[in-house]
Amino acid sequence: MVISEKQDEKCENNQENLVQKLVFPEGLLLENGQKLAPLEVAYQTYGQLSEAKDNAILICHALTGDQYVSGINPITKKLGWWSKMVGPGLPIDTDKYFVICSNVLGSCMGTTGPRSVREDISTARRWGAEFPEITIKDMIDTQKMLVDSFGIDRLFAVIGGSMGGMQALQWAVSYPEHVYSVMPIATSSFHSAQNIAFNEVGRQAIFSDPDWREGEYWRYGVTPYRGLAVARMMAHITYLSEDALNRKFGRKLQENLKDSSVPIFGERFQVASYLHYQGSNFVRRFDANSYVTISRAMDWFDLSQMHDGDLVRAFANVQSRFCVISLSSDWLFPTSRSRAIVQALNRVGARVSFVEITTDKGHDAFLLEEPDLDLTIQGFLSGIEEQRRLENYAS
Amino acid sequence: MVISEKQDEKCENNQENLVQKLVFPEGLLLENGQKLAPLEVAYQTYGQLSEAKDNAILICHALTGDQYVSGINPITKKLGWWSKMVGPGLPIDTDKYFVICSNVLGSCMGTTGPRSVREDISTARRWGAEFPEITIKDMIDTQKMLVDSFGIDRLFAVIGGSMGGMQALQWAVSYPEHVYSVMPIATSSFHSAQNIAFNEVGRQAIFSDPDWREGEYWRYGVTPYRGLAVARMMAHITYLSEDALNRKFGRKLQENLKDSSVPIFGERFQVASYLHYQGSNFVRRFDANSYVTISRAMDWFDLSQMHDGDLVRAFANVQSRFCVISLSSDWLFPTSRSRAIVQALNRVGARVSFVEITTDKGHDAFLLEEPDLDLTIQGFLSGIEEQRRLENYAS
Repeated sequence: MVISEKQDEKCENNQENLVQKLVFPEGLLLENGQKLAPLEVAYQTYGQLSEAKDNAILICHALTGDQYVSGINPITKKLGWWSKMVGPGLPIDTDKYFVICSNVLGSCMGTTGPRSVREDISTARRWGAEFPEITIKDMIDTQKMLVDSFGIDRLFAVIGGSMGGMQALQWAVSYPEHVYSVMPIATSSFHSAQNIAFNEVGRQAIFSDPDWREGEYWRYGVTPYRGLAVARMMAHITYLSEDALNRKFGRKLQENLKDSSVPIFGERFQVASYLHYQGSNFVRRFDANSYVTISRAMDWFDLSQMHDGDLVRAFANVQSRFCVISLSSDWLFPTSRSRAIVQALNRVGARVSFVEITTDKGHDAFLLEEPDLDLTIQGFLSGIEEQRRLENYAS
Repeated sequence: MVISEKQDEKCENNQENLVQKLVFPEGLLLENGQKLAPLEVAYQTYGQLSEAKDNAILICHALTGDQYVSGINPITKKLGWWSKMVGPGLPIDTDKYFVICSNVLGSCMGTTGPRSVREDISTARRWGAEFPEITIKDMIDTQKMLVDSFGIDRLFAVIGGSMGGMQALQWAVSYPEHVYSVMPIATSSFHSAQNIAFNEVGRQAIFSDPDWREGEYWRYGVTPYRGLAVARMMAHITYLSEDALNRKFGRKLQENLKDSSVPIFGERFQVASYLHYQGSNFVRRFDANSYVTISRAMDWFDLSQMHDGDLVRAFANVQSRFCVISLSSDWLFPTSRSRAIVQALNRVGARVSFVEITTDKGHDAFLLEEPDLDLTIQGFLSGIEEQRRLENYAS
């Protein structure tokens, strides 16, 4: 294993940033049987690892997230995606905990993904659409290598929302003795037919863009911006509740068009402009092949698939304490899915608590101002810290 | 007014069909102030108009529907879209009623729309993307001209689901004395932010297709098939409930791929193949400019907009009997929207009944096998027929 801290040359969006990165020359054996080597893992850490190495929290990001969970994201120059949750004195308190967040396998913020240059063939070229099909398990196996590199035997907690929650669940199943506690938020133990359907339409939008070029757009110096923007716009609708959209936009028109009675061939509703903004912002920071790769990994996710669809058996060996959190207005991963996880965990006698946060903000609420979520996360972490103290005292 | 029954030369999909069509040379003054002339209205009728001309039922179709409501659709060679509901001895019994269904303004099955050749300019060319922006009101004004042409003063019923329900509501508001009863099914008095958002993403998918050519694809002999297919696939997800998708497809794989462990760059879930099928079927029969035009008309629909958002005032002058029907698992036009319609109708003392059909099939349930819906429609029609008999007897 070679530890390097170097300027990332592969991620075009990333030029100014000093990316924290580990390189594993021996690579990773993927679930599909392929060997991916070398393997690079870009990550950020916050806070200090204790001498006993027992205060590490791994945070897992969602489909289009990144490792910049707190402080200023050096790429976007905006606050990190969970900066309201992670930092000194915040619910995930970096004065107490050593927080690790790594860019997931297959993404485009420094960890090996379709944008990486292949080193398994003689001609230098990017993986592009030939990047192997990966799974959520492959993502957490990559994280495990990173965690091991710190000499951490057991994570105090693994926390994540949406696809991050899938990773948290997979950690509890795949590495039971290495995870003290798990907080899967706004997630599911499987991708449903509707989830797959939305992802599939997003991918088809990307493939329909003539600049997709069978995924080899980087060869031609183009990017399938329009297709990727359509995919993002559609996905963004699924992240919000109908109530949130109604409250925020309703049927409001763009200000400068209110008095126009002349038909124009453009959009006049504020909600349309908002989606355009979301779409165009996104394509500047994200890679189309990464979107395809990671969305497929989500589609393949089903914790019970190795156990004939029996989630109880999937959880048979878990050892972690769980706090399962759902969001009442989340229709992408509705509360019923979290309840199914809790029920299966109860069947194996796992220590599990369950909180449904009442919010009208939809799936995205876990990224937004939601005081009940803060209290729940902070309370759970304090509680298990106390439990562990008692356990250590007893032993 | 010229009545003609002629081979439609404009609708490429339509060559073998003898389209019933009316031509109104004087045209229609649209809500946006433009005059659209001449105006052609393609329609189908089923059953016999009574001597008193009091047994006519107008059926209004949805976004991508057509006038072929019953029997065999001469274009697709399949059964008409509501053939289980409309026909001899069926809930909307053509042995008793004279059923009219016309292709909506802006569509592509014979009624004037973007595919029509302009006659307002000297150079022969299709409207394409320059087709005027139309509204649901413009659609029903077109239908009113057709209904008048039959000498029908008062329709016995106007019935429609989804966008068809919007038209039914608009009839009750715009022509109160000419509609004896109205059945809006799985619909809303306005398009919500989420409804608009989905439509907008669909349009952006179309505009992203290089074959869109700013809506002038017909000039180049191309069609934005891929963009239109993406729009349709996405819309199709919104027509189905999550439960229906789970029951029908779940996470099932394509049969021939079940044993394949080799990663392929294609889709393996049945739900994806189903969507591909829906998308590719659709683009063969529908015009992209029509999709854009009609989806915009839906977005603009808000019965209360002329009344400062007060739906009660919008209904102030209605005279019809209403049967409002919602579908319990419809998340595109949820039951709450139907309830709001009923509440507003109650406030003006309208005669209104309300039925929520319990189904897990989602928005599309009104087109599917749903015995409770059949019973509701049949029961309502029988009931108002009896009421009208009593009224006639009393007067």
